[in-house]
Amino acid sequence: MYAPIRYVLAGGGKRLRAVLVLFAAETVGGSARAALPAAAAVEMLHNFTLVHDDIMDHADLRRGRPTVHRRWNTSVAVLAGDQLVALAYEVLLKSKAAAAPRLPELFTRAFIDVCDGQGFDYEFESRTDVSMKEYLEMITLKTGRVMAAAAEIGGVAGGGSARQNRALRVYGEQLGRAFQIRDDLLDIVGTEKEFGKTIGGDITEGKKTFLLIEAYRRSAGADRRLLGRVIRRRGITKRSVGRVRTLYRELGVIAAAESAVAAATRQAQRALRALPPSPSREALDRLAEQLLSRKV
Amino acid sequence: MYAPIRYVLAGGGKRLRAVLVLFAAETVGGSARAALPAAAAVEMLHNFTLVHDDIMDHADLRRGRPTVHRRWNTSVAVLAGDQLVALAYEVLLKSKAAAAPRLPELFTRAFIDVCDGQGFDYEFESRTDVSMKEYLEMITLKTGRVMAAAAEIGGVAGGGSARQNRALRVYGEQLGRAFQIRDDLLDIVGTEKEFGKTIGGDITEGKKTFLLIEAYRRSAGADRRLLGRVIRRRGITKRSVGRVRTLYRELGVIAAAESAVAAATRQAQRALRALPPSPSREALDRLAEQLLSRKV
Repeated sequence: MYAPIRYVLAGGGKRLRAVLVLFAAETVGGSARAALPAAAAVEMLHNFTLVHDDIMDHADLRRGRPTVHRRWNTSVAVLAGDQLVALAYEVLLKSKAAAAPRLPELFTRAFIDVCDGQGFDYEFESRTDVSMKEYLEMITLKTGRVMAAAAEIGGVAGGGSARQNRALRVYGEQLGRAFQIRDDLLDIVGTEKEFGKTIGGDITEGKKTFLLIEAYRRSAGADRRLLGRVIRRRGITKRSVGRVRTLYRELGVIAAAESAVAAATRQAQRALRALPPSPSREALDRLAEQLLSRKV
Repeated sequence: MYAPIRYVLAGGGKRLRAVLVLFAAETVGGSARAALPAAAAVEMLHNFTLVHDDIMDHADLRRGRPTVHRRWNTSVAVLAGDQLVALAYEVLLKSKAAAAPRLPELFTRAFIDVCDGQGFDYEFESRTDVSMKEYLEMITLKTGRVMAAAAEIGGVAGGGSARQNRALRVYGEQLGRAFQIRDDLLDIVGTEKEFGKTIGGDITEGKKTFLLIEAYRRSAGADRRLLGRVIRRRGITKRSVGRVRTLYRELGVIAAAESAVAAATRQAQRALRALPPSPSREALDRLAEQLLSRKV
């Protein structure tokens, strides 16, 4: 009965959120060991969102393998996601750090935010007028808040001061923003093997990404009509993907997205300055830096 | 975005689990007021299971109204369920009782159990050899453990002793068993208006209920072949429901289910004797008694 959960957790992935928790704990002088339950919990919460989001997005591939609802079916995927959350709380509550009582609250806030973010994402599907502001709010909830919580939870589990934990939170949120916009970019410039998802899927699905929203804003004439069809998901086939990709480049939105990634990365790195220099702070800094050239 | 959640929570229902928490808190000398967040949390956890179970069971009706995935769609129902759990934890963590730190653990255990129970229930769908022992284990996980947790959480929130809380737990678990078997019975003897679900749905869905498992065990010849078709969901139409219902009565499984309900009810009531007499204990006793003639 737990096979789908094993399948999800064995699927690899970067385990970025768990890494965030552990480095954050060390950065404030705590031990990564004490933060391990919290790290596992945050990673499981993230995997829960993937399983349920993939149902809602009708996604076929995740980490280069069939999604749970494709490999099994929707019922199994619904339950596997639920079990991942339940087990996440179970492991979180095993935390022995002095700050353990605060962890469920931070964790639950992230859980609520990520659901709200997914709600907006879903709502955006049926809307044709999503603004860049709304898009950024959505990715903040859906990706930023979990990364922010991961970093803050690590800080709290590691016994960080209020100021340090706030800095970690800012770091995580900006990292999340950079990460999500990079994700939108990878749908265009990545390869299936590197990305583990169907390339161009955002376009055929009419997903309101940074690229699509910004390109539509900048376009006119026939270009705008094409992008309007993408937004309304009318008459867009796999063959249209190449045309849209070219258009993105011509309109300069690939460069704009890369700038946005760079800006968020720099803000994340700036937040780290509130923390004392250490190998872990260095690692968090490098993690952000790597996002600038993120391929996976 | 929260409309489906409002829809679910406004759907009424008995709010039995919330009531259990409140009475249990009072029975051990605590205040119902202090147990209110926990009561709301348990009720929301229960509503989450209804929304996700209805997806998995392809149920059309719940509390006399279309289920969330019928009224909206599967994506909306997946998300609404997730949000209900997240909000349940949020409200649970508002608990101010001295015993508050223990509540998330008890709550999470119930969350895991109810998922496991749902997993068994789902697995039973594709099996033709479910035994009565397995059935009872499944309903214990799926229904009994949440009711047990509700009663125990109430006891803990109300400052009950370990012995009192254990007694409340036994009470809740047995109440859950009585409740679930009564639920199986209502699919046969209830009316749609009273029950709020499609009557006979268990039969057309080939659901492994107390009645079906026991009837199959007791049957022979043509009767057994008919019940075998129900179990394998082959050639069973709405018209077969009447024949199966008659068979249940002839084989005495309706009476057997009623005995099982009565036995569990008595065990629940016996457990209450470990608690000091009080109007709340009296209310819990009556609650169990009512199940004997439960119509809804």
